[in-house]
Amino acid sequence: MTLAVRYTSARTLDTAPAADSEPGPGEVELAPAYVGICGTDLHIFHGDMDARVSAPAVLGHEMAGRVVRVGPGVEGWQPGDAVTVVPLRWDGTCPACLAGHQHICQHLDFIGIDSPGAMQQRWTVPAATLVRLPESLPLDRAALVEPTAVAVHDVGRAGVREGEKVVVVGGGPVGILIALVARATGAEVRVVELNAHRRLLAGELGLSTWDPAADDITGLVQQWTGEAGADVAFEVSGAAAGVETAVDVLGVRGRLCLVAIHSRPREVNLHRFFWRELTLVGARLYERGDFERAVILVADGTIPADRLISKVVPLTEASAAFEALEGGADVMKILVDCIDDTQGAAV
Amino acid sequence: MTLAVRYTSARTLDTAPAADSEPGPGEVELAPAYVGICGTDLHIFHGDMDARVSAPAVLGHEMAGRVVRVGPGVEGWQPGDAVTVVPLRWDGTCPACLAGHQHICQHLDFIGIDSPGAMQQRWTVPAATLVRLPESLPLDRAALVEPTAVAVHDVGRAGVREGEKVVVVGGGPVGILIALVARATGAEVRVVELNAHRRLLAGELGLSTWDPAADDITGLVQQWTGEAGADVAFEVSGAAAGVETAVDVLGVRGRLCLVAIHSRPREVNLHRFFWRELTLVGARLYERGDFERAVILVADGTIPADRLISKVVPLTEASAAFEALEGGADVMKILVDCIDDTQGAAV
Ligand SMILES: [Zn+2]
Ligand SMILES: [Zn+2]
Repeated sequence: MTLAVRYTSARTLDTAPAADSEPGPGEVELAPAYVGICGTDLHIFHGDMDARVSAPAVLGHEMAGRVVRVGPGVEGWQPGDAVTVVPLRWDGTCPACLAGHQHICQHLDFIGIDSPGAMQQRWTVPAATLVRLPESLPLDRAALVEPTAVAVHDVGRAGVREGEKVVVVGGGPVGILIALVARATGAEVRVVELNAHRRLLAGELGLSTWDPAADDITGLVQQWTGEAGADVAFEVSGAAAGVETAVDVLGVRGRLCLVAIHSRPREVNLHRFFWRELTLVGARLYERGDFERAVILVADGTIPADRLISKVVPLTEASAAFEALEGGADVMKILVDCIDDTQGAAV
Repeated sequence: MTLAVRYTSARTLDTAPAADSEPGPGEVELAPAYVGICGTDLHIFHGDMDARVSAPAVLGHEMAGRVVRVGPGVEGWQPGDAVTVVPLRWDGTCPACLAGHQHICQHLDFIGIDSPGAMQQRWTVPAATLVRLPESLPLDRAALVEPTAVAVHDVGRAGVREGEKVVVVGGGPVGILIALVARATGAEVRVVELNAHRRLLAGELGLSTWDPAADDITGLVQQWTGEAGADVAFEVSGAAAGVETAVDVLGVRGRLCLVAIHSRPREVNLHRFFWRELTLVGARLYERGDFERAVILVADGTIPADRLISKVVPLTEASAAFEALEGGADVMKILVDCIDDTQGAAV
């Protein structure tokens, strides 16, 4: 019997048999190997998204694993293939889709929130969602492809170019990945992060950091940029003060890429947008191309995935992992190990 | 003796002899014919900008007139040439200038605010600021080239394309000009304006309008766009509610061009920027190319300048014109007639 971790109600996960039906036409059954826990999963765990999530719900969308069975009409995939999944299903008919922005479809089905996710030992998804992983890439590291694709998308939306000066406000997993992708694009990067442990980890990855509680960030940016201000800022903190910092550090025609979720309206210094002709650009999720680039960046070590993985826990201990993440700041990425040892590992 | 209108202190203008020195090297002396009064001039008149403006100060930067004398080293200009002025002087050395954005130089000298403006019968400016006007274009209409250049710049910053659906929030002079320029670019346009007189004028210019006090603007936009939302919104109202409307009407990947001055921070629904991947872009002033296109649009009648001019008052009655504009909503553009009849009009 294969298992699934399920969210049942606020702060409660249980374990239940995974669904185990034949994949239908165009579908593929996967054996997830490692599944990362992300901020959205934590929100669901807290009960903040009960209006959207139908419990019991299998969470998880940051995964790597292998193909087990392919459904009728599926070409190009074989049992054993190493894959990750773009966890998006769109309707193809809404104005967003018709304009070519399927990833922000107005009726998006985000797999792992709106429909069953990857935190189980068998998982059936549309073959169209699969992205191939190189055999050389260990599957635990490959679980970081999805969050890296987020960062690739964000850096692309901000239009970061070689030689630009970039400030990342918020040094959690997404902020660190953005910083690494921006650096790989040729930008000079500074990470603004309150938490000392996160600053330490960022430093170990060769990223320069500033502490907004101790440092005068705007002054430091002025010094760093010869009074020009930064070219790009990423708001990844989700805090009101983060928005303010991200606006304040920008130079003329600077671009602020809004990555974090701000569930309530924020006060924004619009005068500065006018005066310096700033741009604010929202960035959400990713497109297939972002995944393809993310696979390369994780596989070639540009993203040091092993150093971002704080811990790997067995599926049966997922609940404890969620609780550990609530403390939050001294862990970066926790993976749930879904490998089904009882059936002889496909990994 | 030639005259100048001067701002001396809050709500007070006087009349004094115009400066009448020989134009220096690279300078040109002009005889302004018509000078428009804009919102910034009103702010100064109210005393709101006393920290920036050194009284007594000659206001005015929306002008058309003729060359009177050219200084040493000035080529290409002759007495009698019809001109308008790009009222900007930049330092050429700040980061904004070095990046090619001289119009938002960090030490910008805006002529008519930071140095003497056009509301006088003789006005000396750098030859580099001159823009040639076609002889066929009456100088009163040509006084609308400057505000039209603002609109051209704004429409350019928003990247308005043919066939797009555009909502202009605020139907004052700038909003109407933006609507007309966007329409000339091939967009479908709706103007949102509280004041009935302004809606009436917009309607006479063939623009469709909505009344935010009576209409459900978001609902109307949904209907108009087949639930897609608008491609572009311009915030020209300066009001908190205007910001909200401009954000709410946008569809996926919509662009909000921020034109109005918001002197205090505004609450912005950043979640919607994230969710729909919206873009906010600040737009300030104009570049020379915007002026050149504005000359064409005013000269060919795309901008029906004559219908936007509510009134022309003699220079000696400028004070009354400023007061009339304070009532505000039932006048669009008032011009000050600076023609020096005593010397035989050059117009
Ligand atoms: Zn769709
Ligand atoms: Zn400059």
